[in-house]
Amino acid sequence: MDFESIIEGMRPREKSVLAVAAAEDDVVLGAVCQAADMGIVTPILCGNKDSIKAIAGEGGFDISGFEIVHCEDPISAAKTAVQLVKEKKADILMKGLVQTADLLRAVLNKENGLRTDSVLSHTAILHAPSLGRPIILTDAAIIPYPDLPTKINMIKNAVKAALGIGIENPKVAILAAVEVVNPAMPATLDAAALALMNRRGQLKDCIVDGPLAFDLALSEEAVRHKKVVSEVAGKADILLLHNIEAANSTLKAFTVVAGALFGGIVMGAAAPIVLTSRSDSEQSKLYSIACAASIANQ
Amino acid sequence: MDFESIIEGMRPREKSVLAVAAAEDDVVLGAVCQAADMGIVTPILCGNKDSIKAIAGEGGFDISGFEIVHCEDPISAAKTAVQLVKEKKADILMKGLVQTADLLRAVLNKENGLRTDSVLSHTAILHAPSLGRPIILTDAAIIPYPDLPTKINMIKNAVKAALGIGIENPKVAILAAVEVVNPAMPATLDAAALALMNRRGQLKDCIVDGPLAFDLALSEEAVRHKKVVSEVAGKADILLLHNIEAANSTLKAFTVVAGALFGGIVMGAAAPIVLTSRSDSEQSKLYSIACAASIANQ
Repeated sequence: MDFESIIEGMRPREKSVLAVAAAEDDVVLGAVCQAADMGIVTPILCGNKDSIKAIAGEGGFDISGFEIVHCEDPISAAKTAVQLVKEKKADILMKGLVQTADLLRAVLNKENGLRTDSVLSHTAILHAPSLGRPIILTDAAIIPYPDLPTKINMIKNAVKAALGIGIENPKVAILAAVEVVNPAMPATLDAAALALMNRRGQLKDCIVDGPLAFDLALSEEAVRHKKVVSEVAGKADILLLHNIEAANSTLKAFTVVAGALFGGIVMGAAAPIVLTSRSDSEQSKLYSIACAASIANQ
Repeated sequence: MDFESIIEGMRPREKSVLAVAAAEDDVVLGAVCQAADMGIVTPILCGNKDSIKAIAGEGGFDISGFEIVHCEDPISAAKTAVQLVKEKKADILMKGLVQTADLLRAVLNKENGLRTDSVLSHTAILHAPSLGRPIILTDAAIIPYPDLPTKINMIKNAVKAALGIGIENPKVAILAAVEVVNPAMPATLDAAALALMNRRGQLKDCIVDGPLAFDLALSEEAVRHKKVVSEVAGKADILLLHNIEAANSTLKAFTVVAGALFGGIVMGAAAPIVLTSRSDSEQSKLYSIACAASIANQ
């Protein structure tokens, strides 16, 4: 599937408004302009007006039609962008040239932030050419060592992201190094608990199974060889990793070795948050915005 | 690079003798016959003679030229194959239809085994089409949660494997989720210690750096973006993962999503041990034998 078809497939029903926190960044501005050109979002740029205009001029980005809200520094830009979402003037938040910690602090502010009763967690929406369908992986960036209650919230967040990109009743694989429950491997114990919670109706709108090794989650051939009986094995839509070391390396094997497109979205706040890093490709940044717009439309 | 060129590139200078523990397995016999046909190894098949002959007959494998040592059961086949290596009648051990734990128990036997002063660790030799060169990843299978002294031995074992397949002075990346030392992330502390041990001459015949995230280990582009100064970043030959969850998922992202060939070798015993699983492809099994033969030649 080529890039245009993937983006078309992700196109939301309605245009969303995207509030960019500290838009004075050439790479972010480039992706935002492209998403606006494609009719996916209407941007509101929060940040230093002079810097934004100078960077747009150098980059040849036409931002003449975009609203710019001047902010003196990145932290006030973060607060302003959060405020726009809180007042329902924007549907999506996007990180620009502001530290992730500063942006998330504004999001988590008890009075003026975008808190919900969930935790914030990172979902990577990955589109690898060899798989031909999107896979959601969590959490490679925000929650380093989740406990069981946190994993429950991470699953709920990932399920919302899956619904947003059109995956109904997603199949959730709780990954471990093995497919058997081993008292010496905590990942397998959490997996067993989560699978049973799903069977008892405590985790809804999805099918959860685990422990599953990565190959059993995604490869029908591995499932045939290992003869594992599971509704999720070989067909997983969501991969929950045990810790940030596992999630981060696995995610980057997708992007660096398997050439996957990567959309980075923080879920769990009142709106999806686009979180891209400078080293992501231009295509991945545009894909992130398209994914967030689909989720905001849900 | 096509499969034949990769195998040719791995071809050892001298033919090795391969002792197969419990050879009564169609998939193992198939790979062993192919490796023998290609002149890479001379097999000695330990196991149930009748079963081996029946399986060879059904599979159409010509084993008429191979020595068969009859053994009543898989555990005695493991002991016999280990004995052949101990007596220097064989250079490589290969797991057939015997439990991994039973084979390793025979290897680790204090009187009759193949112990050295190192630990046994698993090295995955991965050849992904997008990278075009082999990467060694450890440990996805044997050591679940290595401490720092164990990681030192894992590096030594992986460096021996690298030398065996022709990588002189390999670059070792100690992976973590981030490239900064973070007291709250034990993987980064171990990485810092290992990098410094290398600088002080305590870890020889390799260049070690870490903590590095996966993309910084293998992508020159990510290195340019993040401006990390490192002799290893972007050019790593060996990836040391923090735990089995991270190693196993990352390894399988290589094979399942990025289409990598996978050679599975246990290092740290007196001879390399070929450890393949039923779900590995036929090509990967042959690749494993070729890698082990190169290492045995070292």
